[in-house]
Amino acid sequence: MDLIIGPRTYSTWSLRGWLVMKATGAAFAVVDARYDTPERKAALTALSPSGFVPALRVDGEVIWDTLAIAEWAAERYPEAGLWPADATARALARSVTAEMHSGFQALRTLCGTGPDHPMVGDARAETPSDPALDRDLARIVGLVRQMRGRFGQGGPWLFGARTIADIFYTPVAARVRHFQIDLDAHGDDGTAQTYMAALLAHPDFRRWEVEALS
Amino acid sequence: MDLIIGPRTYSTWSLRGWLVMKATGAAFAVVDARYDTPERKAALTALSPSGFVPALRVDGEVIWDTLAIAEWAAERYPEAGLWPADATARALARSVTAEMHSGFQALRTLCGTGPDHPMVGDARAETPSDPALDRDLARIVGLVRQMRGRFGQGGPWLFGARTIADIFYTPVAARVRHFQIDLDAHGDDGTAQTYMAALLAHPDFRRWEVEALS
Repeated sequence: MDLIIGPRTYSTWSLRGWLVMKATGAAFAVVDARYDTPERKAALTALSPSGFVPALRVDGEVIWDTLAIAEWAAERYPEAGLWPADATARALARSVTAEMHSGFQALRTLCGTGPDHPMVGDARAETPSDPALDRDLARIVGLVRQMRGRFGQGGPWLFGARTIADIFYTPVAARVRHFQIDLDAHGDDGTAQTYMAALLAHPDFRRWEVEALS
Repeated sequence: MDLIIGPRTYSTWSLRGWLVMKATGAAFAVVDARYDTPERKAALTALSPSGFVPALRVDGEVIWDTLAIAEWAAERYPEAGLWPADATARALARSVTAEMHSGFQALRTLCGTGPDHPMVGDARAETPSDPALDRDLARIVGLVRQMRGRFGQGGPWLFGARTIADIFYTPVAARVRHFQIDLDAHGDDGTAQTYMAALLAHPDFRRWEVEALS
């Protein structure tokens, strides 16, 4: 089983896919792909038909979208509890996750990751200012407060145990750190800040960070 | 059970959510929301916390993303067969679906739907020309040919029986029709054209079209 990923310092979707696979507890190999030249892009397309990362090669097939990989993993490793066991919590966890999958364009654009804006390490950047970014951040703070208030059970995660939803928001925490965003200014009462810190302190993210910086 | 939707003539995600709910066979009510003024947008946010449509109100909860609604429906109505029964086909169906959920930005922008570019009826527009659009269309044609060739079993759908993947590509068929796109120019051998015609001929899409135009 191989997970094809992009640059570890800034490929946010690769991080999500890798965290999902780590959360399954299964053994898998990592294939580092690059797509910074037409030749490398062509080589990647041979590995991953959409040309996107991450992609999972398993049983002779390629599953090529992070959310599809996550759903596959949740089915294949039910004991890992990748989604909440409760049907209502699960439907809301999927809503939160899917909103991250297709949305928050202002955050993703204005706080974009790249060689100069890594998810890892000590580099910090000026905080961008934009009304659309403010809306995205207020929405994220609101989601975190609402889900942790209802389902968090006093722990650090959105739905009690750590799920795919938390994994999907981990790169958000890295962006908030790098771009030095003050969540208090976006409606936080400390809940979202504590949540972001927990995401970045998780052993799997710490390991990713160490490997990315090595 | 209420499905909150946007304008039927051009809200592509509302169409997807509605087609999913129709495919379950369950009874549900439709709530028509509008978001063309700040007041209406605020009223919609009270119904759907993300402010997006579609959203499903069920059992006192709101599930607010189309893909989350689809996964909820597939779990709640297993007899509807919303995903392929075979695990490999299901993982690929989810890849195809998730790629539509977050991707094909050129198609969605350059062949955008709106009051002047409806998904329904006889209005037709000039075909846009753009390299990024060409890449999206070639990718869609490739996906359709590949999945139908492997799993189509000689029928009209991507994975044998009609699934969420087909539902997610139905608005693509409406865009191809409205913008008069010649799929042959994007690598089609007739397979994708036949597929698009089947999507638009499905009784549920026909019913949506009739209601949208009435």
